[in-house]
Amino acid sequence: MIGTKDLAAAIGATLEGEDRQVTSLLPAGRAVAGDVVVPADDAALQETLRTPGAERLTAIVVTPDAHVAAPHPPLLRHPDPRLALARISRALDPEPAPPPGAAPSASVAADATLGPGTSVGPGAVVGAGAQLAEGCVIGAGAVVGPACRLGPGTRLFPNVVLYPGVRIGARVRIHAGAVVGADGFGYAPGPGGAEKLHHLGSVTIGDDVEIGANACIDRGTLGDTVVGSGTKLDNLCQVGHNVSIGRHCLIAGHTAIGGSSVIEDGVMIGGGAALSDHVRIGTGARIAGRAGVSKDVPAGEAWGGAPAVPMRAWARERYLVGRLERIWTFVRRAQKAEAERSETTEEESTGGRGA
Amino acid sequence: MIGTKDLAAAIGATLEGEDRQVTSLLPAGRAVAGDVVVPADDAALQETLRTPGAERLTAIVVTPDAHVAAPHPPLLRHPDPRLALARISRALDPEPAPPPGAAPSASVAADATLGPGTSVGPGAVVGAGAQLAEGCVIGAGAVVGPACRLGPGTRLFPNVVLYPGVRIGARVRIHAGAVVGADGFGYAPGPGGAEKLHHLGSVTIGDDVEIGANACIDRGTLGDTVVGSGTKLDNLCQVGHNVSIGRHCLIAGHTAIGGSSVIEDGVMIGGGAALSDHVRIGTGARIAGRAGVSKDVPAGEAWGGAPAVPMRAWARERYLVGRLERIWTFVRRAQKAEAERSETTEEESTGGRGA
Amino acid sequence: MIGTKDLAAAIGATLEGEDRQVTSLLPAGRAVAGDVVVPADDAALQETLRTPGAERLTAIVVTPDAHVAAPHPPLLRHPDPRLALARISRALDPEPAPPPGAAPSASVAADATLGPGTSVGPGAVVGAGAQLAEGCVIGAGAVVGPACRLGPGTRLFPNVVLYPGVRIGARVRIHAGAVVGADGFGYAPGPGGAEKLHHLGSVTIGDDVEIGANACIDRGTLGDTVVGSGTKLDNLCQVGHNVSIGRHCLIAGHTAIGGSSVIEDGVMIGGGAALSDHVRIGTGARIAGRAGVSKDVPAGEAWGGAPAVPMRAWARERYLVGRLERIWTFVRRAQKAEAERSETTEEESTGGRGA
Repeated sequence: MIGTKDLAAAIGATLEGEDRQVTSLLPAGRAVAGDVVVPADDAALQETLRTPGAERLTAIVVTPDAHVAAPHPPLLRHPDPRLALARISRALDPEPAPPPGAAPSASVAADATLGPGTSVGPGAVVGAGAQLAEGCVIGAGAVVGPACRLGPGTRLFPNVVLYPGVRIGARVRIHAGAVVGADGFGYAPGPGGAEKLHHLGSVTIGDDVEIGANACIDRGTLGDTVVGSGTKLDNLCQVGHNVSIGRHCLIAGHTAIGGSSVIEDGVMIGGGAALSDHVRIGTGARIAGRAGVSKDVPAGEAWGGAPAVPMRAWARERYLVGRLERIWTFVRRAQKAEAERSETTEEESTGGRGA
Repeated sequence: MIGTKDLAAAIGATLEGEDRQVTSLLPAGRAVAGDVVVPADDAALQETLRTPGAERLTAIVVTPDAHVAAPHPPLLRHPDPRLALARISRALDPEPAPPPGAAPSASVAADATLGPGTSVGPGAVVGAGAQLAEGCVIGAGAVVGPACRLGPGTRLFPNVVLYPGVRIGARVRIHAGAVVGADGFGYAPGPGGAEKLHHLGSVTIGDDVEIGANACIDRGTLGDTVVGSGTKLDNLCQVGHNVSIGRHCLIAGHTAIGGSSVIEDGVMIGGGAALSDHVRIGTGARIAGRAGVSKDVPAGEAWGGAPAVPMRAWARERYLVGRLERIWTFVRRAQKAEAERSETTEEESTGGRGA
Repeated sequence: MIGTKDLAAAIGATLEGEDRQVTSLLPAGRAVAGDVVVPADDAALQETLRTPGAERLTAIVVTPDAHVAAPHPPLLRHPDPRLALARISRALDPEPAPPPGAAPSASVAADATLGPGTSVGPGAVVGAGAQLAEGCVIGAGAVVGPACRLGPGTRLFPNVVLYPGVRIGARVRIHAGAVVGADGFGYAPGPGGAEKLHHLGSVTIGDDVEIGANACIDRGTLGDTVVGSGTKLDNLCQVGHNVSIGRHCLIAGHTAIGGSSVIEDGVMIGGGAALSDHVRIGTGARIAGRAGVSKDVPAGEAWGGAPAVPMRAWARERYLVGRLERIWTFVRRAQKAEAERSETTEEESTGGRGA
């Protein structure tokens, strides 16, 4: 439990009102004693203030210049309410640390090293030579392959699988069922069928990365597949072999990144997008959900559609497709008129001949 | 083993013929003693009757008014052969109940409760305070997080992961590798990169729900993500944070539902569809496979395409795109004719000038 | 460690130069003593030769007729450098065989049989009556259901789940988290909601198949879902119930194959494609990434687009859509001219009347 005074300090806000105990966060428009509300906009703020019992709320988060008519519950003034929301959510997340050490049913190789406070859950496996820094949490049933290295505070949720040699930075969260370091999809046609390209590289992941449930990041063929610090990948994403993803990218669910593609820093990719092999997405570019990207995207540009083009061109294409009904009507009418004219001409000339 | 007489009673059919022992179900056109055949239509029925040995079949399922020339094997008359098929398949599915209690290699928290007959498989984990009603089956390696609640007869297949606090109703089946309750994909841009929105809500699932293998259902940010009773989700589906799915929906594989979207009751969604954040799909609406839905869909409507539009408009758009060859031919011809006319005019005027 | 002489023999190449020890494989353009480089083309070869220290490379793979100016490091001449690369990668892959027998924390049913050299990892489960041939490797946490059968040398990576009765050939590799044999997505509408079609079939997989991480292959309803020998499926693919996939197919990531579809031999499917239920893809056909196939594709053809059409028609459609701007300009101009003509006519006739 935390009070609003401490919470204000924790999130970088100014408290306007008394110190009250915080129980939970609530969506706008509900008001229960103990709760903090973070209205998304002014309409949501007004709705919250009108809700019966609003005065018993523990606090409302508003911008520094928001005018709130008295009487009102305590205010937490913060220039970025969404950032305040993230920080309050962190302050309120109990996320209990499991007991340090390995559960009796875990299998930890004799030469693996576990840092202070690191916990290995029931049934989890830590392979030969793996090095886990301090404060890691290995969920139940997760498998850390031989020679993997995990930075401090990194957390694998249950049933995550790291293949051998995967290197992961600090404070990384990998959600349940994700697989890091499986073989990429590479074969050479041989006389008796496809011959497998064995993958001698691995995967390197930076700090503060989050990887969604059941996502897959394949190992490199010769070098490593790389995910930069601060990057977040959503559930069920697929990252092919030899891909390099930069820092602070946001990649939404079901997105697939083809082999050897390069995603530079700060790129945002919507859900269900697919990038071909060997494309480069420039720094800060934005790719719309469901886009099918088969060419390089210059830095800072926004692209969408399948095949993807700059958003402006995509919107224009959609606009023009929307004009097809009128175009078709025009063409049919013109062809009909033409046909009638040629019939008329025919009649005239026939008439002339008959005359 | 069951006889046709008991089977008729079990599936709500009328038996016309003798009581024979049922060994298995067979597709139409094959005939092996002991088998029941459920022809999909009259052609399949005739094919089945013509198959050598058809008279030794245990039974054929036909509609009440179907005329079948004698001699014929016993008939199970049922108004809905597909429903009869489902019920026969259920009657014939051995689905053996594993021994009740926890396997020696399972980890069950001291304060977790297991109902009578509930089974916890090898290596499975049941967290602190979890409550499992009677007759649940927790597959090998599955993880039930702390404070989860499962209704009677619910079955988790191997390696399913439930994060803390997930609430599940009765007779739910969750297939292998599915992950329920992982954090949603929510971040606020902060001065040092994206700051994580911690997810304080969880997931609530009704009764008689089935969830496919490796599907992901994220927990809510403040409240719960909800899946209504009777709803079926196929493999590899992704359900975002705060989504609310109603009762009796059918959602096919690889479909993604963006955060905070609302799917009302009885909605059907084809495979590979993607719904944006914050859309609402009205009761009984149908969404075509691969649709990309970024707007609300009114109740009862059928939509398709990407971006999705009503099916009629989508079909019309496809029709018009199919007319593009003719349109382009017309435009090119008209432009050519115009160019020739203007050349002629040019010549004439030049001629005039030259004269 | 292997020398170039032995490596040449192992991969079917001719060694031109001395026998050197091979340490690793490197991408073109880097040169470290001990390394073998396989340049993708002549430009990469020249770049490699120009790299300082190139003479210390262990070997460069070139085609039999490539001209390489002396002095140069030893050459491995092979008619197909990509195939050579695959074979060198195999020769250099340590892929250590885990110790035979079952780990103490594994659960192996009393009546299951494990062939000589077969290894069952920590926490893995082998169900009643399962038969594993010699040299199988069952990864940590993997679950082999009752009555499954695995051919020699087959490898399940960690946390793979095989439902009961799955039959797998020799030398198959199934990557982490993949699920084989879960129930298909089949229901019949009943008076109280969807009634489940219980799946009485299973899955049969041939020899030398590779299945990607977190992929799903559903069991058949009455018969088996089938994957032919030599076929490779990438991560996160979905194969519906009763599907039959032939031999030597390559199916890239996130692809979904609808129920009862038939993929004949030698078919290649790009990433993110989706095939409807009940379609047939003929021998040797190629389906582009992201295609949406709802019709049969004849043998040997290449199709793309959604809905998919022959590649030529798809390219033509894309070309015509790209002409829409010109078409729209023409139509607008023509309509304007027409409007002006009709105004002029109006004026003339008005003028005539006024006269």
